[in-house]
Amino acid sequence: MQKRKAAVLAATGAAGQQFIEALYGHPWFEITGLYASTRSEGKTYAEAAKWFSSNPMPPEIARMKVGDVEKALNDVDQYDVFFSALPSEVSKEMEGKFGAHKPLISTASGFRYENDVPILVPEVNAEHAPLIRVQQQARGWKGFVVPGPNCTTMGLIISLKPIYDHFGIRRVFMTSMQALSGAGYPGNPALDIVDNMIPFIAKEEGKVQLETVKTLGKFGDNAVANAGFPVSCTCTRVAVIDGHMLSIFVETDKPCSPDDYRAAIREYNEACRKAFGDLPSAPAETIIVKEEENRPQPRLDRDLGGGMSTVVGRIRQDEVFGAHGLKYVALSHNTKRGAAKGEVLAAEYLIREGYF
Amino acid sequence: MQKRKAAVLAATGAAGQQFIEALYGHPWFEITGLYASTRSEGKTYAEAAKWFSSNPMPPEIARMKVGDVEKALNDVDQYDVFFSALPSEVSKEMEGKFGAHKPLISTASGFRYENDVPILVPEVNAEHAPLIRVQQQARGWKGFVVPGPNCTTMGLIISLKPIYDHFGIRRVFMTSMQALSGAGYPGNPALDIVDNMIPFIAKEEGKVQLETVKTLGKFGDNAVANAGFPVSCTCTRVAVIDGHMLSIFVETDKPCSPDDYRAAIREYNEACRKAFGDLPSAPAETIIVKEEENRPQPRLDRDLGGGMSTVVGRIRQDEVFGAHGLKYVALSHNTKRGAAKGEVLAAEYLIREGYF
Amino acid sequence: MQKRKAAVLAATGAAGQQFIEALYGHPWFEITGLYASTRSEGKTYAEAAKWFSSNPMPPEIARMKVGDVEKALNDVDQYDVFFSALPSEVSKEMEGKFGAHKPLISTASGFRYENDVPILVPEVNAEHAPLIRVQQQARGWKGFVVPGPNCTTMGLIISLKPIYDHFGIRRVFMTSMQALSGAGYPGNPALDIVDNMIPFIAKEEGKVQLETVKTLGKFGDNAVANAGFPVSCTCTRVAVIDGHMLSIFVETDKPCSPDDYRAAIREYNEACRKAFGDLPSAPAETIIVKEEENRPQPRLDRDLGGGMSTVVGRIRQDEVFGAHGLKYVALSHNTKRGAAKGEVLAAEYLIREGYF
Amino acid sequence: MQKRKAAVLAATGAAGQQFIEALYGHPWFEITGLYASTRSEGKTYAEAAKWFSSNPMPPEIARMKVGDVEKALNDVDQYDVFFSALPSEVSKEMEGKFGAHKPLISTASGFRYENDVPILVPEVNAEHAPLIRVQQQARGWKGFVVPGPNCTTMGLIISLKPIYDHFGIRRVFMTSMQALSGAGYPGNPALDIVDNMIPFIAKEEGKVQLETVKTLGKFGDNAVANAGFPVSCTCTRVAVIDGHMLSIFVETDKPCSPDDYRAAIREYNEACRKAFGDLPSAPAETIIVKEEENRPQPRLDRDLGGGMSTVVGRIRQDEVFGAHGLKYVALSHNTKRGAAKGEVLAAEYLIREGYF
Repeated sequence: MQKRKAAVLAATGAAGQQFIEALYGHPWFEITGLYASTRSEGKTYAEAAKWFSSNPMPPEIARMKVGDVEKALNDVDQYDVFFSALPSEVSKEMEGKFGAHKPLISTASGFRYENDVPILVPEVNAEHAPLIRVQQQARGWKGFVVPGPNCTTMGLIISLKPIYDHFGIRRVFMTSMQALSGAGYPGNPALDIVDNMIPFIAKEEGKVQLETVKTLGKFGDNAVANAGFPVSCTCTRVAVIDGHMLSIFVETDKPCSPDDYRAAIREYNEACRKAFGDLPSAPAETIIVKEEENRPQPRLDRDLGGGMSTVVGRIRQDEVFGAHGLKYVALSHNTKRGAAKGEVLAAEYLIREGYF
Repeated sequence: MQKRKAAVLAATGAAGQQFIEALYGHPWFEITGLYASTRSEGKTYAEAAKWFSSNPMPPEIARMKVGDVEKALNDVDQYDVFFSALPSEVSKEMEGKFGAHKPLISTASGFRYENDVPILVPEVNAEHAPLIRVQQQARGWKGFVVPGPNCTTMGLIISLKPIYDHFGIRRVFMTSMQALSGAGYPGNPALDIVDNMIPFIAKEEGKVQLETVKTLGKFGDNAVANAGFPVSCTCTRVAVIDGHMLSIFVETDKPCSPDDYRAAIREYNEACRKAFGDLPSAPAETIIVKEEENRPQPRLDRDLGGGMSTVVGRIRQDEVFGAHGLKYVALSHNTKRGAAKGEVLAAEYLIREGYF
Repeated sequence: MQKRKAAVLAATGAAGQQFIEALYGHPWFEITGLYASTRSEGKTYAEAAKWFSSNPMPPEIARMKVGDVEKALNDVDQYDVFFSALPSEVSKEMEGKFGAHKPLISTASGFRYENDVPILVPEVNAEHAPLIRVQQQARGWKGFVVPGPNCTTMGLIISLKPIYDHFGIRRVFMTSMQALSGAGYPGNPALDIVDNMIPFIAKEEGKVQLETVKTLGKFGDNAVANAGFPVSCTCTRVAVIDGHMLSIFVETDKPCSPDDYRAAIREYNEACRKAFGDLPSAPAETIIVKEEENRPQPRLDRDLGGGMSTVVGRIRQDEVFGAHGLKYVALSHNTKRGAAKGEVLAAEYLIREGYF
Repeated sequence: MQKRKAAVLAATGAAGQQFIEALYGHPWFEITGLYASTRSEGKTYAEAAKWFSSNPMPPEIARMKVGDVEKALNDVDQYDVFFSALPSEVSKEMEGKFGAHKPLISTASGFRYENDVPILVPEVNAEHAPLIRVQQQARGWKGFVVPGPNCTTMGLIISLKPIYDHFGIRRVFMTSMQALSGAGYPGNPALDIVDNMIPFIAKEEGKVQLETVKTLGKFGDNAVANAGFPVSCTCTRVAVIDGHMLSIFVETDKPCSPDDYRAAIREYNEACRKAFGDLPSAPAETIIVKEEENRPQPRLDRDLGGGMSTVVGRIRQDEVFGAHGLKYVALSHNTKRGAAKGEVLAAEYLIREGYF
């Protein structure tokens, strides 16, 4: 297969760098364009980017010239696909201009809540992909825009999916303990985090609540009908570099014991393996269950499955909802599964299904 | 008033040191006895204790000789009251021997779940104090044993109290993010906490669930009837020195808006001021409400009210239970309000009410 | 004594808040003016300042109106003294305008390296104070500008002073491990500090090297002659909130054993007690020696002496310089001793000596 | 080449696990034996070891049975080489028993200071390897014991080596900021490390001072003559998971500018590439020089060269020794280069040179 020519928008920031790490050496994609703000124009990537990863910057990437994202539209024909790490504020205005011509896969929130835009997570809602055709028709676009969910939503919906499919869900309460990298760089001042935590993340709770019911919704009649259960969240920031931990309480429609959940996860993993096991970024196990009483832990478990597995632990019957209640914790790597690498997986799925 | 002569059991450990800090210079108590394990017998306190506080060890305390806790019963007549920081494992067996003769106020869990033992928090359940008379009669004791709740329970029950009294409670979900000092010293290895968190604390969830409904229960017919709502918790450990943060979701009987909760807190604070404002360790405000969107924070807010105020913030209507649902975060200083200083407040109340 | 009316310049920032903490309730000063950037003008202090301290903002201060620092000169007659926490970049230009009229005591570096300006630390170089008269004459000022040293210099010069006076110094090597608060707010991003440290602090090493020999210099002929030994530093930032730790190696002129140093410290403390013990901000012991092998530690020892004591530990004979070599570590509270509270002590000294 | 059969002693602890990570999948070695304390005997490795790495435990290793290290001597003929992570206290007594029969490579300190034992770091003192023959003869052993240096010594001697060879060294001052993993598990309590640092590590300074002059010594007349310069250290512990940072001041015999040092490093790297580039664990660059003013940083740079490169930065002319003085910082991965993986490199060298 000829590799797709990929351009990264907002390539020098933290999220853009994660796209580069997810795409570099990828069997299906070749990074041929890097775009950032006017300030970076004409510089090499090495000059323009403060590199955050402990993996060294790939030398070929380091030598590439960075273009001005404002002029990137002029080059639209040179690429097969755009990966966008644009700030959410500008994503809504800019991403559509690219989507009119080419596929654009995004970590930004600008398009997530549009009716004709799927928030695509293959293992959760591959069935939403045809909404892309609706989008193209409605907007007269040759390309499309497909965002992924917020990094906090990701671990929630993947861990809920086997419950929802087998037992139904009535209510969800979630408290997150989120990693610093979720705020980008510079993000939280160290003075706010050492011997401290922050029980607030701007706009995060609303995003998670909205995205959970949309991603778990049903596709039909050219639209997605949101899942019918309410979600309530409190989001907090803790002194962890990578890996969002979620404490989740679920009320189910049908009784669901911890072992029922474990069995549903095994079945779900098997189904994911069949459906997506051929995609290069798919992990061997979509959900890894940890049975040790004090796991998952961010530092030890966030990189399981190449950072693409959701790690679930402390599965217990809940004291409030009894046989209809489950509580557990879930860990998801926010800059891999919950951002760039998760989006690359979505792009792989769309290629395989012929969307580009 | 003649100062009560107080002995501290397990005086050299972290919890014992907190008793010393809470009692030193106290207008109603004088520390006249310090007891620890056989290993410390005969040493001065300065020799026997690795001092953790950033306040220097008081010189008079430093010079005191430490006795063997196994032989402390021989000295029982020298003291008016015992403050026990014994490990929970041994508290059940040992504390009763002292309680047979003298009042013993404890941070340990050994007696908490006995039917004739109140878990006494003046602002929550002063009405449970008469259970002490039941205890004395049933056991033929001249003294008594009164424990306080677990440090995590404390912030939960104080913040729930105004809700419970005004609106009734149907269900509670709580996720804690607990401080390191809650595990004593040495507690968690740094390798488990730097760039990490632990989503598990042994036995903590069961304790909190049990103690919440007991402390909020009604006293009548010489017994406490547990409050009638279920509580479900997930307890985690984060990289914070002091101050347990709780993320709480409550379903109420009657509708309760954030402003209703605020009003109930104001009324509650006023009632506490009237009832307990004369007690030396009582804070000016039992609950402090923070309206900034990112507060409370452990490092900035844990010492409010001398570490005795519960700090509530992020009060919101909950998306799941709607008008019957509240969510908020609460911060409580685990080694002050949630342990020694909180117990000293209980002792002050019992003195004022004539229990000793 | 009538309290001096004090105005704080740059009162809303982290350093300005420390002046407020050091001056509030002070027996000799009354805070009657607060100035900050134009953006804060007309707001109450509570509205204008994001308060960092875990001590609550004093209510009288909270209600004060903040003035525009650009217009503060108009009010110069209302105050007896100015305390300046201005950013170093603007301090050089602005502070002199105030100094022309009134005493201005500063934490900024703008004036530190001027020949007619003492970097005043009473316990180190009270004898430099007369340079103020030189300054007033040379510049035709009625007031004056007196800065304190950099927060990292402070612990170095106080711990060197007894060595220098008794044994002479040939060479000094110092590696600092500095606290986050030294960088102000927001300072270092948490992503750079969690599971990490930064072996660089902009301009810090040069400042420390210069200020050490100036503060330890001799005053004579209306000028300060720098001390005649070279100093070499490497400055680093670590995950500590407050308290700069220094690892120091000194070559002395005369032989100096650890016990010689201890004796010199005792004598020095005694001399300081006599000379400065009447000043409200002076600590009981200028230097506290910790003999435990693993002390001082920032969290446990930084607040000793109200944050004004320098805490020295691990005093050892050095393997390189032998009988002429000492090595030790020193801890100094960077926002108390090393900044506002240290400057307030200098102001107290200048009042007592009749400089204002 | 037939793979050497390797047994790991003390295989379940933190250091033993690092040997497993360094040896698993190694082209020259096969792990065929795992030994630990009696308590682990007969268990599978998965049952016996609390696994610390974020790389999952290799399944083949997980299934292996763990033997009792006290009985391992009985199996001595089954192995070609022993890798020992024994605690230093027991290493002296036990390692010799194995060394009598087979090569034993160790991270422990028990044998380091014996006259007939080289502390072998190929890039520093490959020429010391013949001391093994002296050892075998003197002790009548068929095997031998070869330890590596302390993890803190490693970054010091590698970074000094090009200076020593080109310019000579008169004096060295070093302050370390060491990672938590250097203390093993559980190591430092989190309560001692969050918002804190510890300016002391038991016995570390003496080890580093001794080992530096031994490893940089000259081999001749069947013995190593220590290098003739004194070293003085202060060792501290900071809140970093992996990666020891060293702040180093060196006085040289001949003048040495920062660029002289850079040139010497380039030459040294080239020489190492030629001499050791064929060894599987050797990094592409023995020393990596970082020119950014705030590098190296532990989290970003410790894994460079697979954790085997020493990363040097902040190279400056020193203010004390002038043209004869250099100061710089060096970062070395303490559990890779400074422990197991470094020892595996030494073993590779000894195989290539025919020592086993």
